[in-house]
Amino acid sequence: MKVLVLGGDGFCGWPTSLHLADAGHEVIVIDNLSRRAIDLELEVDSLTPIRPIGERIRVWKELTGQEIGFINLDLATEYDRFENLLHELRPEAIVHFGEQRSAPYSMRSNAAKRYTVDNNVRGTHNVLAAIVASGLDVALVHLGTMGVYGYGWSGSAPIPEGYLTVKVPTPDGDIEREILHPANPGSVYHLTKTLDQLLFTFYAANDQIRITDLHQGIVWGTQTPQTALDERLINRFDYDGDYGTVLNRFLMQAAIGHPLTVHGTGGQTRAFIHIRDTVRCIQIALENPPARGEKPMVFNQVTETYRVRDLAELISRLTGVEIANLPNPRREAAENDLNVSRDRFMALGLNPTYLSEGLLEEVRDVAQKYRERADTTKIIARSTWRAGMETSPDLMKND
Amino acid sequence: MKVLVLGGDGFCGWPTSLHLADAGHEVIVIDNLSRRAIDLELEVDSLTPIRPIGERIRVWKELTGQEIGFINLDLATEYDRFENLLHELRPEAIVHFGEQRSAPYSMRSNAAKRYTVDNNVRGTHNVLAAIVASGLDVALVHLGTMGVYGYGWSGSAPIPEGYLTVKVPTPDGDIEREILHPANPGSVYHLTKTLDQLLFTFYAANDQIRITDLHQGIVWGTQTPQTALDERLINRFDYDGDYGTVLNRFLMQAAIGHPLTVHGTGGQTRAFIHIRDTVRCIQIALENPPARGEKPMVFNQVTETYRVRDLAELISRLTGVEIANLPNPRREAAENDLNVSRDRFMALGLNPTYLSEGLLEEVRDVAQKYRERADTTKIIARSTWRAGMETSPDLMKND
Repeated sequence: MKVLVLGGDGFCGWPTSLHLADAGHEVIVIDNLSRRAIDLELEVDSLTPIRPIGERIRVWKELTGQEIGFINLDLATEYDRFENLLHELRPEAIVHFGEQRSAPYSMRSNAAKRYTVDNNVRGTHNVLAAIVASGLDVALVHLGTMGVYGYGWSGSAPIPEGYLTVKVPTPDGDIEREILHPANPGSVYHLTKTLDQLLFTFYAANDQIRITDLHQGIVWGTQTPQTALDERLINRFDYDGDYGTVLNRFLMQAAIGHPLTVHGTGGQTRAFIHIRDTVRCIQIALENPPARGEKPMVFNQVTETYRVRDLAELISRLTGVEIANLPNPRREAAENDLNVSRDRFMALGLNPTYLSEGLLEEVRDVAQKYRERADTTKIIARSTWRAGMETSPDLMKND
Repeated sequence: MKVLVLGGDGFCGWPTSLHLADAGHEVIVIDNLSRRAIDLELEVDSLTPIRPIGERIRVWKELTGQEIGFINLDLATEYDRFENLLHELRPEAIVHFGEQRSAPYSMRSNAAKRYTVDNNVRGTHNVLAAIVASGLDVALVHLGTMGVYGYGWSGSAPIPEGYLTVKVPTPDGDIEREILHPANPGSVYHLTKTLDQLLFTFYAANDQIRITDLHQGIVWGTQTPQTALDERLINRFDYDGDYGTVLNRFLMQAAIGHPLTVHGTGGQTRAFIHIRDTVRCIQIALENPPARGEKPMVFNQVTETYRVRDLAELISRLTGVEIANLPNPRREAAENDLNVSRDRFMALGLNPTYLSEGLLEEVRDVAQKYRERADTTKIIARSTWRAGMETSPDLMKND
């Protein structure tokens, strides 16, 4: 089918674009290259040598003969161009990664908070408004986050896939109601994904848009079979304090002999998924949309859970690199358990890559291979959740 | 105390500004005059002859000696000016009416939907971000809406004031959780108020901002003791299909002999409050803020409930004007009951104006008095919730 991939130049968007193209879909990437611009702002770069989007697409065409389209467009500020594209291209589906996706970046400064809210909410609402205006029956697949649920909210019950049935007391006894899982966002970034959920619920009901919201865990790994075909197709690998997610950060730290940076006790339990499974999940969601008039379909896009300190110990054992416990710049519980329902993707045939299988490949083929590109002054997380919270000084001098 | 009134030139904002000034507070109105600009766009005008904000403030000064400040500023697009104002003025409280507040207008067109989301979410988030940046302990009072709750969701239980205690099933038995009442917005406008709630919850927790959210019913009536002091202080009265709320619309229709326009069966039950009580509630909320670190305090700002057809019949009996049942342009339940908790304002001393007392004054002093200013081509609601929904032709020729 014809699919627009919004944010198709990013960490999840690029491998998804290639995976969908490889699976026979007609892919058009829409991206304003904002993620690359933020790298310039933060004076940091992907550990892996990612190529410009034009070159990426040209190489893919050389290798496979497949055309991937690209349009440089800002969803938040170029509404009319986007609506015109829908009229012109008439896509059957849209995969929406086009949001600012770092929690630390979203808390970095007043301007970053406002950018994250303005960009994410306006962009997502513009997509919905344009779908309504187009009159097309477009299936929308959106990347959400596990962070909408918060941690430890539902006691010993597993976190459900989006919806929760609760009992509401009334004078006539308890009544059962299915509700969107209450929102417990831990950052302005996560907050925007909870706002998105309300936008989706409204537009699915009022305009019968078919929407799937994927509450993804922390992605690890770098390559998919498609991005690994040629070094010029390589995927982004972030290791900096704002965009580097915990496991990839540990792998890169291990590769350069930097202490593994654990915030607080490391008692936070988080959900993980390999990038190879992310792209498969997107395809499964795309090919199994809800019917018109249904409420948004929600999947938990995670495959396993780990406690951060257990992850650090695992990598430390594998590599001999020590662990450094740093002040936690986030406002969050020091320790939490996590039990996540993830039946839907399993039922639809996902066969996950687990940490136990993929870690060594990642260390060898990515972190070790590109270690010379690391800027060690960018490793420590410096964005704090409130003014005055403590962070750590650099732990290592740059070579 | 020193209070900024955002949207202080509007229907609720203007009488609130005068009421707070009269009560001894130092009031500074911040408004971009967008409500007046929308009147120009819709080619309609307040039934009452409202004066420019500069004249309003000058007359108030002449009559009372009190200075009210005024700053023309757009909260959504002039963030830096707003933050600078907080540094300069150092207000102790902010009353925030600065949002697009019509449900039909918010559904009128693609552009109006996007304006409502962009303006309301950005503006409200900018206010929160600026309070954090200012470092001031500012109490924020925001005008929400009863429409965040939806109608008929909680069975025979009264709609609580913001929060609901539910039972969540777990393997270890039910656990109790207090949640924000699930959001069931009926329009893009109402949707933005449900987004605001999540913004408030996050900023109250992360930055300990003291926030009160007032879920107001449909306001009726026009004048407060202060706006009635001089005709040049008169408050706005909207009767058009977008901004005219149901009861005021009936009163004006009765005054000019236009059939009372009931959408659908009129079985919708809604909550009402007189504008005189709105301004008192704002003062009560302002003077009773939550403590730092508390979750947002929510009041239901309503005093009585009526079924729309009962209201129409009441006015029809009083005035002899007939009732016209028109197609309903909204997606909503044809009939609903409504039972609203409203204990907090009552406990804090609100002594309401009920419909039974205020109606005749309103017909005589406002609707009758200014009937010649009505444009009967603007009475019928033309904004529909989905393309293709039916509306009524005009029921009366303009004189």
